[in-house]
Amino acid sequence: MQSTSTSLETIDRPFITWQRIIDWAQEHYRCRTFNKDERIPARPGLLYLVQKGSVRLVGSAQVSATGKLSKSTDEAPEEAFLGFVGAGQPFELVAQSPFTLQAYAHADQTHVVWMYWHDLDNWPHFRREIMDAFRYQHQRKLLWLSTLGQRRTIDRLLGFLTLLIEEFGLPYVSEAEPDVVRGYRLPWALTHAQIGSAIGSTRVTVTRLMGKLRSKGLINTEDDNLICLPANPESAKAKNQNKQTEEPME
Amino acid sequence: MQSTSTSLETIDRPFITWQRIIDWAQEHYRCRTFNKDERIPARPGLLYLVQKGSVRLVGSAQVSATGKLSKSTDEAPEEAFLGFVGAGQPFELVAQSPFTLQAYAHADQTHVVWMYWHDLDNWPHFRREIMDAFRYQHQRKLLWLSTLGQRRTIDRLLGFLTLLIEEFGLPYVSEAEPDVVRGYRLPWALTHAQIGSAIGSTRVTVTRLMGKLRSKGLINTEDDNLICLPANPESAKAKNQNKQTEEPME
Repeated sequence: MQSTSTSLETIDRPFITWQRIIDWAQEHYRCRTFNKDERIPARPGLLYLVQKGSVRLVGSAQVSATGKLSKSTDEAPEEAFLGFVGAGQPFELVAQSPFTLQAYAHADQTHVVWMYWHDLDNWPHFRREIMDAFRYQHQRKLLWLSTLGQRRTIDRLLGFLTLLIEEFGLPYVSEAEPDVVRGYRLPWALTHAQIGSAIGSTRVTVTRLMGKLRSKGLINTEDDNLICLPANPESAKAKNQNKQTEEPME
Repeated sequence: MQSTSTSLETIDRPFITWQRIIDWAQEHYRCRTFNKDERIPARPGLLYLVQKGSVRLVGSAQVSATGKLSKSTDEAPEEAFLGFVGAGQPFELVAQSPFTLQAYAHADQTHVVWMYWHDLDNWPHFRREIMDAFRYQHQRKLLWLSTLGQRRTIDRLLGFLTLLIEEFGLPYVSEAEPDVVRGYRLPWALTHAQIGSAIGSTRVTVTRLMGKLRSKGLINTEDDNLICLPANPESAKAKNQNKQTEEPME
């Protein structure tokens, strides 16, 4: 989808020196494959590249106004979903206090390559592409912050899903009409708890509001539970209303 | 304050070629001074540097699940406060859809310099410092997203203030004890409406929760209404409680 107007167009094409980097990483044992939800032991000062699959960034709060975090040990610290890093994209985890950042594989067979920043001295052009990728990610996070500033939770939810699918969504076509793009779909599953953790809400509220967005035709989740933004919300709404009329028992 | 452990230490020192950049900008009419709350007409593709003062980044939502934005023209679009860019720091406004990013001077006499990205070809070392500054800003935004994922508004508020003051806070000393750092203080005023717009809440709620944080001794606002995190929250709390006991009518 990626309709965002941007001057950072370099990030859309594969890195030019990508294959050389992969070869170098394998030679130097700087790559590893992770299973879904496995933590990637990323350290400050290192640069990580997602070669295949997808990485989920997560932040945990160390402070709380109510002091609950320190008192009740049975309550896990609140972990916030901070976004995906897709194949071909770099990430780093530097900042620490008063929140901890962590990275997890979000798909099975997620390949990650790592290097020191000074390793990039060998590939000055590649360094520039990495930097442009970080500039792009920074701009996306500013948009993300824009939607999280909205007062109504349903607006934050729709803004959050729109931004994610704008960045990572793939065209969705049905078997019946393979030429018609019906919408754009997030290629990975995201639980309602994870969505809640991103928008400052709860699993229960997200489930309720997702139903509301679905009944308004603003999102749909087709057959496989992957979140989809319809290409034409109005027609999706009409279809949805027909469905409700025709198949009330479903 | 800046206690965040980071490998991006370059950003703390002044840019090495800073004076040469300023001279170049003045020669080429690439600098301008803005008054407080004046909009900075930043365009995609250009790089901006804050020479003096402070810039406030703001995002406006173009989408809403309730469709209110398009219907009621008398309601201003929700503008979210996205952070400050301090003196010596770069910013750019690239991403657009479905949110609009804008920049405003946050202090009087804010000096801004701008250039095209290719102008940086003349200063390769400076380009690296700019890039490190953007890497740092990106990491700070990940921390910011971490706190906005917290469910309780008071936790988001405290996390938000903590992050801002960690990054921009200046030591606060009283005249009576000039050697004792009593806390770290945000050098610019921020309205409760602006804070609310950052954490997905309202002015009224922020005012109420700021009072709560103050009574717990987690923040204070000394004489001049600038938000301050006490160096030692416990003693501030004790002081606050004494104050409440001794001067109940104040």
